[in-house]
Amino acid sequence: MADRNAPIGVFDSGIGGLTVAREIIRQIPDEPIVYFGDTARLPYGSKSKDTIIRFSRQVLHFLESQRVKAIVIACNTASAYALDTLQRETDLPVIGVIRSGAHMAAQMTRNGRIGVIGTAGTIKSGIYGDTIRQFKPDAEVFGKACPLFVPLVEEGLWHDSVTEEIASRYTAELKGKFIDTLVMGCTHYPLIRSTLRRVMGENVTLVNPAYETAIEVKGMLEANDLTCLVTPEEKYQFFVSDQAEEFTSFAKSILPEEVRETKKINIEEY
Amino acid sequence: MADRNAPIGVFDSGIGGLTVAREIIRQIPDEPIVYFGDTARLPYGSKSKDTIIRFSRQVLHFLESQRVKAIVIACNTASAYALDTLQRETDLPVIGVIRSGAHMAAQMTRNGRIGVIGTAGTIKSGIYGDTIRQFKPDAEVFGKACPLFVPLVEEGLWHDSVTEEIASRYTAELKGKFIDTLVMGCTHYPLIRSTLRRVMGENVTLVNPAYETAIEVKGMLEANDLTCLVTPEEKYQFFVSDQAEEFTSFAKSILPEEVRETKKINIEEY
Repeated sequence: MADRNAPIGVFDSGIGGLTVAREIIRQIPDEPIVYFGDTARLPYGSKSKDTIIRFSRQVLHFLESQRVKAIVIACNTASAYALDTLQRETDLPVIGVIRSGAHMAAQMTRNGRIGVIGTAGTIKSGIYGDTIRQFKPDAEVFGKACPLFVPLVEEGLWHDSVTEEIASRYTAELKGKFIDTLVMGCTHYPLIRSTLRRVMGENVTLVNPAYETAIEVKGMLEANDLTCLVTPEEKYQFFVSDQAEEFTSFAKSILPEEVRETKKINIEEY
Repeated sequence: MADRNAPIGVFDSGIGGLTVAREIIRQIPDEPIVYFGDTARLPYGSKSKDTIIRFSRQVLHFLESQRVKAIVIACNTASAYALDTLQRETDLPVIGVIRSGAHMAAQMTRNGRIGVIGTAGTIKSGIYGDTIRQFKPDAEVFGKACPLFVPLVEEGLWHDSVTEEIASRYTAELKGKFIDTLVMGCTHYPLIRSTLRRVMGENVTLVNPAYETAIEVKGMLEANDLTCLVTPEEKYQFFVSDQAEEFTSFAKSILPEEVRETKKINIEEY
């Protein structure tokens, strides 16, 4: 039986999952979090299913060693490839970012035509289409991999003509399908939301799975009597597999709360 | 004592080192090669020295298990961070890509002002400046990290207005330093040579360390009586830690010789 005052374990390939952690902090500010970013092996988005499952399993073991009460896979690629495996291999509740985003997209669309942008891995998996059709069987879902968005975001070009040019190219095909809803299916993408808004126009609804996932996490904790009653003094802990200092400074720019330090671990040992 | 008919081991974080393998194949076409690309953990360029040394040591063990006669670190970042360690930890000759490129830059410059472009890791290490000044103590060396070039090359935008725009931004500072020689200090960059040529103008000499390294490898084999006398039937073997099929198709577009198949291994076991 998990301790209800234990932290939620949140993991991502690197910094992108901080947009999910940010939404969790906004929705349930009393909940402690242990965050792990696999910065030694990022990105996950361009790698194979086998490899992502292997990496995610090691992260699961690390988070279990931190005695978390639940796990949030704050990475679309890892959610696409490894959610089932992790759910099978642990007794803890495991939530990915795809189901909530898919559910919201199915609810928001009026014409039933939904676009999904993400990494090569997420798009190749076809998981958003499959999940959206669980909620809305007649939905037409169009995916587009956008491999340059993550490096552009990490280079800081959030509001830049080059990012807008690349966004125009990536979304041209989706606009040609007359979608009315677009899922930002990678945790980095909310950081270029204003560029995507400009390129897609005002009539397309942008869905942010990070926001929807935070609401799902809140509901899951309540349903399982896992909401924290006594918030520990050290509310947020950050771990990475490489580049701890760079991570800390990026986390400070994303998160509303103070980020003190990030610890480096060797994830291959888990 | 190494077998002179054994293959040369060449490794990189992924596909970039194929530009080095290509030059080796051109210079010494009878030499067998075992190539390893660490595609499960790429890129190396944005990661820390400790992590790159740990990854490179595992690759060394893998290449030793393949009974190679010499090792070429066909990755600037791994050459910058791990060459010394690997040379200490094996009896095989180990050659990196930096020394040859630095030597050529020191020879080519007329005004003593040399630019170096590379990954964040290579530039942060300062190794090109240190090495160039071993050959030409009064050289002034200006480094510039170009993190978007690798993803742009991997997205296939070798001849594209976006790549040219990014190249103009990255090189503006170097042009302001009046360099007359520019080292392409990352194995991906020769693939956008024509863009770099256009942005830098005809008066700046572009140095390709891959070419210089292949000449150094040839000389090293001759000096150590390690040139191959009986070329084996399976002349080139390719191994990766992920995405074997994608690697094969990229390798076919880069290499002059037939690339049959790529084998996937778990590098974390070495």
